[in-house]
Amino acid sequence: MKTHKILIPVLRLFIFVLLAVCFFAQSDRLLAGSGRTGENTLPEQELIQVLESFKKTGLAEEKAYDYLKILTSVGGRLTGSPQAELAVEKMVALMKELGFDRVWTEPVTVNRWVRGEKETGLIKSRKFGKSQIKVAALGNSLATPRAGLEAEVVEVHSFDELEKLGEPRLKGKIVFFNVPMDRKTINPFAAYGQAAQYRVRGASAAAKYGARAVLIRSVTFRIDDHPHTGLMHYEDGLPRIPALAIATADAEKLSGWLKDDPHLKVYLKASCRQLEPVVSHNVIGEITGRDYPKDIILAGGHLDSWDLSPGAHDDASGCAVTIEALRLVKACGLAPKRTLRAVLFMDEEFGGTGGRAYARSQNRAGEKHLVAIEQDQGGAVPVGLAIGRSQELLDKIRPLEKALLQLGLHWVRNGGGGVDIAPLIEQGSIPGTVVPDSQRYFDFHHSALDVPSAVHPRELELQAVALALTLYYFSQEGI
Amino acid sequence: MKTHKILIPVLRLFIFVLLAVCFFAQSDRLLAGSGRTGENTLPEQELIQVLESFKKTGLAEEKAYDYLKILTSVGGRLTGSPQAELAVEKMVALMKELGFDRVWTEPVTVNRWVRGEKETGLIKSRKFGKSQIKVAALGNSLATPRAGLEAEVVEVHSFDELEKLGEPRLKGKIVFFNVPMDRKTINPFAAYGQAAQYRVRGASAAAKYGARAVLIRSVTFRIDDHPHTGLMHYEDGLPRIPALAIATADAEKLSGWLKDDPHLKVYLKASCRQLEPVVSHNVIGEITGRDYPKDIILAGGHLDSWDLSPGAHDDASGCAVTIEALRLVKACGLAPKRTLRAVLFMDEEFGGTGGRAYARSQNRAGEKHLVAIEQDQGGAVPVGLAIGRSQELLDKIRPLEKALLQLGLHWVRNGGGGVDIAPLIEQGSIPGTVVPDSQRYFDFHHSALDVPSAVHPRELELQAVALALTLYYFSQEGI
Repeated sequence: MKTHKILIPVLRLFIFVLLAVCFFAQSDRLLAGSGRTGENTLPEQELIQVLESFKKTGLAEEKAYDYLKILTSVGGRLTGSPQAELAVEKMVALMKELGFDRVWTEPVTVNRWVRGEKETGLIKSRKFGKSQIKVAALGNSLATPRAGLEAEVVEVHSFDELEKLGEPRLKGKIVFFNVPMDRKTINPFAAYGQAAQYRVRGASAAAKYGARAVLIRSVTFRIDDHPHTGLMHYEDGLPRIPALAIATADAEKLSGWLKDDPHLKVYLKASCRQLEPVVSHNVIGEITGRDYPKDIILAGGHLDSWDLSPGAHDDASGCAVTIEALRLVKACGLAPKRTLRAVLFMDEEFGGTGGRAYARSQNRAGEKHLVAIEQDQGGAVPVGLAIGRSQELLDKIRPLEKALLQLGLHWVRNGGGGVDIAPLIEQGSIPGTVVPDSQRYFDFHHSALDVPSAVHPRELELQAVALALTLYYFSQEGI
Repeated sequence: MKTHKILIPVLRLFIFVLLAVCFFAQSDRLLAGSGRTGENTLPEQELIQVLESFKKTGLAEEKAYDYLKILTSVGGRLTGSPQAELAVEKMVALMKELGFDRVWTEPVTVNRWVRGEKETGLIKSRKFGKSQIKVAALGNSLATPRAGLEAEVVEVHSFDELEKLGEPRLKGKIVFFNVPMDRKTINPFAAYGQAAQYRVRGASAAAKYGARAVLIRSVTFRIDDHPHTGLMHYEDGLPRIPALAIATADAEKLSGWLKDDPHLKVYLKASCRQLEPVVSHNVIGEITGRDYPKDIILAGGHLDSWDLSPGAHDDASGCAVTIEALRLVKACGLAPKRTLRAVLFMDEEFGGTGGRAYARSQNRAGEKHLVAIEQDQGGAVPVGLAIGRSQELLDKIRPLEKALLQLGLHWVRNGGGGVDIAPLIEQGSIPGTVVPDSQRYFDFHHSALDVPSAVHPRELELQAVALALTLYYFSQEGI
């Protein structure tokens, strides 16, 4: 397999998962929370007072959840869709209303994929009868023929198994990748990374042996009735076949039926397609630094989402806590020395074009991004701050650590990052992430279940307060 | 106020809250997770292998949630109720079915309070009209007169304010304690402790000045439509007046209406009453120690609950993880040196009689309870292990700490305890608690919202695995 051809999406998944996983891997390297302060640090007591202000303003009002509701009110925000553009408008209006010093957009050219009609899936078994299955095309997938396609199904559990079966067994068939997220893996992002590779690479891997379509078990720990979509990629030089996610409850059913009726057929119909690329936008707002306006402390989430839900956790939550963090600084009457900038990136889900466009924009000339924090692991209760790559940094920021522990976070460690800020990190910015607990995250991820009621206003606000404190600390202290 | 008369329930609340709060207070004293092992410790590598077995058996199957559903299937389990007795039967049957070495019950004499008919609450305002309010009698409260009672309402926000108003303002009135849980307090148990004192002491405090009844704002961070009940206590020598919880949404409404119509009246009707004490039971099961059967490593939760819900978090979750922890040890083929004992205590909610009866039972003769772990802070994702009172213990159990961090817990600290194991701690047992995140706990607490769907099977199982590992460690290592 010419793996270099599909390197970008695989690398994207890899970055997403690796950055999330590394917080767990370092779990035996906890920092002792001393009160030691360096020469040039914000006095610890002052930081605690700032924390008290943020708590008072933030936790009482829980505005982050209001902002999340504004963003999710536009519905699913597929990159390039009218909803995504409406989200741009709404977020510009919100930041202006909140009185940020500057609010603007920057253009991003994005691919536009549309789902078309709701997909159809049907098991046809002589032994068990017919049964509808809940399926959804994966992002980038081609449609089935207009009348749908019908074929026997071969269930596989690994790429190795696929290769062993080869063309004699797979030609003309629907390949059903039935690989669950491994519940024994503690870190959900690690389990996701393992299972999601079939979603990303499965279609081309199966097409190589003449398969007509792939059905991918939805990537979630749970057994539910909702397909979880996500990005897939076609390898150049191989036939392009439709790729659909199947709800885990239906994956279990299909697998069970196949045991007793290996010749059952599945009918699939999907009408998704690629349209012409369109110009979309990143949304940017800032509180301009009083002393060093060109020194940027950035935080962001992504504005786009999948289309099956309003993407409350993924990633309205990241956008909401970013906006709320800046609001808290302003509402508490603080004037940061360096610029605090909120960037709501367009198109994380379909390739990270917004992150690259932001980093490469000529507007960046003369700006120095000291720290870049990405919030894209859901809106749950924050457990720690993952930041930077050096022990020196951790030693320097002990006052921040102490304040975050008072806020109920459990640790400060090296780590942090994400798809959208990766280009900035390459340019030397210090990465960071306020890390939420993620045990429930994939219950909702990329499915119809990712709705505002799945996010808790208090948990989200705790994340916003932690982010505000981190941003403010770096705005005063630099790096 | 003769405060010594109401010392026991206040002390109970105090213990409950203090033990929970102390985990947060020590948040700057994290342990560095070294791999150091003492001479007599279970080899670290062996413990990691045990963890792998527990993960494999536990996280794949998530049986703790099955046990929670069995227990909650009997409904609310008010101390002394038929449902509580059914819960005793079901848990005995479950432990026997799971093949524990010994399963038995021990008697506990408990008070029996019954709610009677569903309560009625009505605001009658000349200005705004009539409006039903959702109310529920507090545990121990007397009924209203059979026809109900109706009176003007005085809203107060502290005991100080109550005393300042005194008899001239309060006589003949319904006192409305409208004290929210303070969202600015990070630790929910600390915020609970502050607000719940009005629930516990409010009736007698108001009766002293001639009030006819009290309405207590439900103790939750959220604004919801469900009264959250809980224990209250009458001080000897003062009139006993009805005490009801009011849903927070209705508390907000009542407070708003009172501003414009201070002479509005509220009608309340409750038919709750005390019956004769009855004999109930603690349920006990164990895996008997191979080498030291009289050395006990105990874990437990409480079997009773409030009656407004099946008490999924409070405390079916504690019972379920306790049973699952012992099952995991057995299912993984381990033969602990010391006895692992699961105790499902009756009557935590109405006074902790089950805990005292267990500690004082003649069955305890010759037994030595080395460690007693109480799980009664909800079924959410575990964040740490709170254990014991000495640094020496923490130093000794580094291998356990390392394994728990691999399981995703964030820390091991001194702490642990609870109402049911307090008598054992007094006798010298080391207290412990696998501490869950509690930011959502009071959303459900003591209300109709505390249902199985509020508990997450994976989060609950992570708690059970952490408990199993802790129990097994101490069974092999002693203290």
